[in-house]
Amino acid sequence: MSFSPLITQLIDALRCLPGVGPKSAQRMAMHLLEKERKNGAYLANTIHLALEKVGRCEKCRTLCESTLCRICSNTKRNQGLVCIVETPMDILAIEQSGGFSGIYFVLMGHLSPLDGIGPKELKLEQLDQYLAAGEINEVILAISPTVEGQATGHYIMEMVKAHGKSVSRISYGVPFGGELEYVDSNTLSHAINSRQLV
Amino acid sequence: MSFSPLITQLIDALRCLPGVGPKSAQRMAMHLLEKERKNGAYLANTIHLALEKVGRCEKCRTLCESTLCRICSNTKRNQGLVCIVETPMDILAIEQSGGFSGIYFVLMGHLSPLDGIGPKELKLEQLDQYLAAGEINEVILAISPTVEGQATGHYIMEMVKAHGKSVSRISYGVPFGGELEYVDSNTLSHAINSRQLV
Repeated sequence: MSFSPLITQLIDALRCLPGVGPKSAQRMAMHLLEKERKNGAYLANTIHLALEKVGRCEKCRTLCESTLCRICSNTKRNQGLVCIVETPMDILAIEQSGGFSGIYFVLMGHLSPLDGIGPKELKLEQLDQYLAAGEINEVILAISPTVEGQATGHYIMEMVKAHGKSVSRISYGVPFGGELEYVDSNTLSHAINSRQLV
Repeated sequence: MSFSPLITQLIDALRCLPGVGPKSAQRMAMHLLEKERKNGAYLANTIHLALEKVGRCEKCRTLCESTLCRICSNTKRNQGLVCIVETPMDILAIEQSGGFSGIYFVLMGHLSPLDGIGPKELKLEQLDQYLAAGEINEVILAISPTVEGQATGHYIMEMVKAHGKSVSRISYGVPFGGELEYVDSNTLSHAINSRQLV
């Protein structure tokens, strides 16, 4: 026995949301149908509207519904300093840290030759054009310290250096507030090897 | 700094789903916009369709898109044996246990005078009419062992007895596979007090 066909279809459709398994999808479907019909209709309308209107910023490629995002169109930001990130969520995290006044460039992924994702798929030539146009003075790489992330960072580093611009990467190491005994050994060995004189 | 207005609206709209906090809603919105546009549109359509078509079974009041649900319209089920449950999810749980061949009656809540929910709000007169019509021979109460649940059960018990029909409730006690030391003391003291001779 299961739910009626249409309820089953709704449960299946909800599974496309990240982190939603069969049980949560059931609970969500029941909740929408039993108690949240008005908000459910609003949610469906908003999904439609967002899917229709939200595209990518022409310059940094983050998700937004205007041609240029709010950071790229902000003249108070340092348009010569570009921070390279993998996803729009990374922009939010860096903005919330409050320590950056430049603009961003969103990779929308990382190089992954096994999955057929090369520089072309990430459209890295767009970054190359900006560098050639001389708009950018300095590039900061804020990419996850994974194998693919590092490979991507290395590729971009070469690209920036070829244009004779300055390039740096965020520091990796033990996070503030983290207790040493709970830090993974990769991070810890990196932190020891890249120790700094004080 | 935050996301663009439309993305923020999508994040807020997703919060109507149960168990979805600010962080999960962000992740869901990004996921839909970045990777699941096709499935997102399908989800929005399905929510609309389900909200429009899914109503309640005329007889047992569970959620379904037809006049009678699959259980109420199944002539192989014992239509004289009615199990009273609080929600459609409870029906699924009992059906999956495989131990019941009758039909259901869904309360859609429980009596809660403080919240203004009385017998009228639960439309318990519908059950009274069935009992008066003589369709029902036996009633099983499968209601959560909470204070409100017990009060609701007691009310229905009186109603069924007034019609001279048999009424029982599911047994409460230590669950199978549960280790005694982890069972809460309410359950345990109930299990001891309602011990059965073997």
